[in-house]
Amino acid sequence: VVSPENIETMKSIIEKYGHKRVTVVEGGITRHRSIFNGLKVFAEKEFSNHLLQKPEVVIIHDAVRPFVEEDILSKVVMAAKEHGAAGAIRPLVSTVIASSADGCLDHSLERARYRASEMPQAFLFDIIYEAYQQCTDYDLDYGTECLHLALKYCKTNAKLIEGTADLWKVTYKRDLYAAESIIKDNLSQEVCVITDANETVAQVAFLLPESLKSQIKVEAVSISQSRNDSHLQSIFSGQCYNFVCVNDKKRAIQETQQLVHMLEKSDIPLLYPVVLISVYLDTSGNNSFSIGMEELTSIKKFARETKKKNILVYGLLIQYK
Amino acid sequence: VVSPENIETMKSIIEKYGHKRVTVVEGGITRHRSIFNGLKVFAEKEFSNHLLQKPEVVIIHDAVRPFVEEDILSKVVMAAKEHGAAGAIRPLVSTVIASSADGCLDHSLERARYRASEMPQAFLFDIIYEAYQQCTDYDLDYGTECLHLALKYCKTNAKLIEGTADLWKVTYKRDLYAAESIIKDNLSQEVCVITDANETVAQVAFLLPESLKSQIKVEAVSISQSRNDSHLQSIFSGQCYNFVCVNDKKRAIQETQQLVHMLEKSDIPLLYPVVLISVYLDTSGNNSFSIGMEELTSIKKFARETKKKNILVYGLLIQYK
Repeated sequence: VVSPENIETMKSIIEKYGHKRVTVVEGGITRHRSIFNGLKVFAEKEFSNHLLQKPEVVIIHDAVRPFVEEDILSKVVMAAKEHGAAGAIRPLVSTVIASSADGCLDHSLERARYRASEMPQAFLFDIIYEAYQQCTDYDLDYGTECLHLALKYCKTNAKLIEGTADLWKVTYKRDLYAAESIIKDNLSQEVCVITDANETVAQVAFLLPESLKSQIKVEAVSISQSRNDSHLQSIFSGQCYNFVCVNDKKRAIQETQQLVHMLEKSDIPLLYPVVLISVYLDTSGNNSFSIGMEELTSIKKFARETKKKNILVYGLLIQYK
Repeated sequence: VVSPENIETMKSIIEKYGHKRVTVVEGGITRHRSIFNGLKVFAEKEFSNHLLQKPEVVIIHDAVRPFVEEDILSKVVMAAKEHGAAGAIRPLVSTVIASSADGCLDHSLERARYRASEMPQAFLFDIIYEAYQQCTDYDLDYGTECLHLALKYCKTNAKLIEGTADLWKVTYKRDLYAAESIIKDNLSQEVCVITDANETVAQVAFLLPESLKSQIKVEAVSISQSRNDSHLQSIFSGQCYNFVCVNDKKRAIQETQQLVHMLEKSDIPLLYPVVLISVYLDTSGNNSFSIGMEELTSIKKFARETKKKNILVYGLLIQYK
């Protein structure tokens, strides 16, 4: 559900990221009127197609709470199936008070007895749709709480589910910075290790996930001949942003270039820098680092080029005896 | 008021930044017990010295709300003088609900009728101290709201004052990033223009504040002979982080070095980069840029050195005919 002035922007976002299972509905002038518009699409005949069959359970969520986890979604859905309605809650950060007409304190609420009602919320479709059909214009214009409508018009006491701190509403300018910090934090917690079929190299590459996995999520991928490995493709589109690529020195540059090429072709949105650390193992047993000036120059030049595309390539040459 | 385990840290901060009018008091195991400890210092004879005379009005504030403006402090103080108590409030971001014993929704509050109680709060000292002396152990252990104590024990209805969004509690990890964004935003909104006594140069320097002042806060300072100008000193300790220094080319390097030296000697905490743009006006009327290689090298070397101290020096040579 999108406000009329933002519908074109939303449609272009949906197109850009290739979302297939989204229907855009025009919002109303208040929160409740917008939600009601969204629900009507499932109920009214003219909209019905195979994507929009009337569901058993419907989830209502705010776009300003972008960090919703699958876990809380499944919890509110399961609770809605049992209780008819369910919603995420959080402890109150401030004491809540009621003011008198002259702007003075009337009374304060005991903080421990109350909770902040957050999103997502889930409902049996028939219950929430019935509630919106029954409710008054006053509810639609001044109400803010779907759980309240389910209680008032359908006698359904929603089950309350403790949510995570990340469910907060991105409200103020500072929240944009907070949101960015969470995105970056999440991205930095995952690394993908890629190696080739050379036995010695693969052995070394295998030690890396072992030593890293206590600290961050490590996905290790061993690749034989082909770079068109579907597993690798799925990792690229799974939005991992950090790669360690362990290869034999002899194939150094081609391997790195092929990986960057695959990254560019993948669906990964390059909003944040992708970090690709290319580890070149020198297994020749020579005592001297035998990388030529020409090779070094072309690697550096390549890294400068990819940096413009927000892919940061770092090289590491390790002599392995 | 500081928790026992943090007293040493707090004392080292106070020493580091040279705060003179701070008394550290040991906190209790709950919010109210901590505040009560703080108030006792003013009332009890053994602590009395000229710094800690019993005040007419006392302000209570949370250290986790670092962005308190002078404006709201003075508003709550004035209201406390009139009403006996006053506190900052904010609109509720989420609906507040009460849960029943089985974890289901009991009722929801009409959001528009309630407010979040924030800090700072101000009280006539005699009222809040009386309230803390009267209140029960249950209040001290489970209560959270000073305004509530003033109402309950002294029949004082606190005046509620609308606060700014920046009064929020730095609570979660993400809030640290949000706080940093506010600090950086504030720092970037102010620039200080410094120039020398040369008439032509000063004329040019004078145009800069005129053209910048619609966008950011500009403080312009003209300096005659001496760099020990007390006005300049006060700006350095007023925590401006951005400087544009317009000088005649002939005195280029010395001027910049003197300014950096003054910055280092000043009280400005170099937690954030100080940006110093040195504009060298070539008023000689020559058609060629007559800066020598040697001069350029020494400026660049100087800039590299200051960068380590978090002072970023940029040079700009302008030919002025």
